[in-house]
Amino acid sequence: MNQAAYAAVDWGTSSFRLWLIDRTGHVLAERRSDEGMTRAATIGFAAVLQGHLGAVGAAADLPVIICGMAGARQGWVEAGYVDTPAPLAAILAGAVTVPGQSRDIRILPGIAQRCTSAPDVMRGEETQLLGALGNDAAGEALVCMPGTHSKWAEIRNGTVARFATFMTGELFAAISHGTILAHAILGAEAAEDRSAFQHAVVEAFKTPARAANLLFRVRSRQLLFGGSPAAARETISGTLIGLELAAGLAKGAPRGNLTLVASGRLAVLYRLAFDTLSVAVQCIDADAAVLAGLSRAAAATWTR
Amino acid sequence: MNQAAYAAVDWGTSSFRLWLIDRTGHVLAERRSDEGMTRAATIGFAAVLQGHLGAVGAAADLPVIICGMAGARQGWVEAGYVDTPAPLAAILAGAVTVPGQSRDIRILPGIAQRCTSAPDVMRGEETQLLGALGNDAAGEALVCMPGTHSKWAEIRNGTVARFATFMTGELFAAISHGTILAHAILGAEAAEDRSAFQHAVVEAFKTPARAANLLFRVRSRQLLFGGSPAAARETISGTLIGLELAAGLAKGAPRGNLTLVASGRLAVLYRLAFDTLSVAVQCIDADAAVLAGLSRAAAATWTR
Repeated sequence: MNQAAYAAVDWGTSSFRLWLIDRTGHVLAERRSDEGMTRAATIGFAAVLQGHLGAVGAAADLPVIICGMAGARQGWVEAGYVDTPAPLAAILAGAVTVPGQSRDIRILPGIAQRCTSAPDVMRGEETQLLGALGNDAAGEALVCMPGTHSKWAEIRNGTVARFATFMTGELFAAISHGTILAHAILGAEAAEDRSAFQHAVVEAFKTPARAANLLFRVRSRQLLFGGSPAAARETISGTLIGLELAAGLAKGAPRGNLTLVASGRLAVLYRLAFDTLSVAVQCIDADAAVLAGLSRAAAATWTR
Repeated sequence: MNQAAYAAVDWGTSSFRLWLIDRTGHVLAERRSDEGMTRAATIGFAAVLQGHLGAVGAAADLPVIICGMAGARQGWVEAGYVDTPAPLAAILAGAVTVPGQSRDIRILPGIAQRCTSAPDVMRGEETQLLGALGNDAAGEALVCMPGTHSKWAEIRNGTVARFATFMTGELFAAISHGTILAHAILGAEAAEDRSAFQHAVVEAFKTPARAANLLFRVRSRQLLFGGSPAAARETISGTLIGLELAAGLAKGAPRGNLTLVASGRLAVLYRLAFDTLSVAVQCIDADAAVLAGLSRAAAATWTR
């Protein structure tokens, strides 16, 4: 494994991902675990990282570049924020070195929107943006990054002009498990219902103010007309995603060059939602984007 | 206690209320407990009811009129629904007798909107409507009945033309306890922040599509600018109520003769929300309304 040039780490709240990368940018090895910030804060960040580095046979002096919640106040070392309007290049320049380590470990900063009328923060998604768009991209782009806390970012000439977080994924979880609708979706598991999802996206997009009513209809519909648990779950999902899209695609937002940065099931769902609304969107894999962003950061930090 | 004419019971999902009423409509005694439908289904509905009747010294043949979830399919005896457009007088006529009881016990039906595009159900609120408006009210009214599942009903000449349920209260509970915002409101307890509530109502009313973003700002604001747990909690509350009002007061809804049927803290919050939006509203106490509705039903059932 001595051809490794550095390790790249995406350290989220509940997940940890590490890639071992060679000089040409190829992935030599990959590790995934649930030792996100929350668990790592208990175990110890250095121990978690060293465990994974040891498992892939990393050299003792292999440098490590990290993005995500490891740089939060409650994380390993606070990496602060670059304030909007935030040039993506400033992310590269803002990396913080973890002190007292035998190897060179850098944590990338997040982005903060210190605006009292629309305060917002991101940590990790700035690295996806860096990977998806590069730090010298010309022109305007609107980027949707779905997740527990979906981010919508407006980028102008390589600078994050502004962004907004929608707690869509977390609302889905809280509503699916913590309300009367938990009964409606019991047994849905992996079953799908594309048409229920698409119908819900359109309804919420057209009448976002009715969101709390559209959600209750999931129960009323099942009570009065029956219907599958899968249809119920997809309706909840479609309602919340349609609500998010109603804001993200509202008049005034830049519609040209819309990019979706997502992976797995979220990529499928959001792509379907955009298609349902006849909104053209370019798709970039979120895993590839974060890795590309970390690689850019590594190149800026350790090569010249 | 032999002057009692009947007992009136509001039997919800999680609460039980009983009033002992004399021939002139005066309340002789009152009982409240948490033996709502959910607990009563385990204990036994007859036993719960008899326990409370015994505690207030009710005669063995005292009749009982009941509204609410005791009439649901999972309740004591299914009392069905009156379909929209639902004359409030049909509620009175639709009472179901509980079989096999030594006393005369009637359960009032709910209202169903069997419309595939906007299915909805209510149980208990129809009795509040009956009490608040009477069954022969002329003209149009828009009635807001806040709660775990808030109801907005359009009444025309004593008939419920249509209605919509918003799961505002349940969303507040799920979001306050089951998301990252639980940390933001820790320690808020009884403290209030009227201006945070009012600001949130206005924001959500103006831009309902941004609801999931307005909620996340509660966390971002605290992270970047500080702020009290009470402000955070009132912002969540105001956002969800503002979202509900954006739909309830949307163009096309009848705005004249708007009536708020609520009690306690919900009455205060919704009243403040309407005032903040400069919307004139008539307020009726929900407890008084349900009791008046049950009394009308008792009068229609047992006196002539």
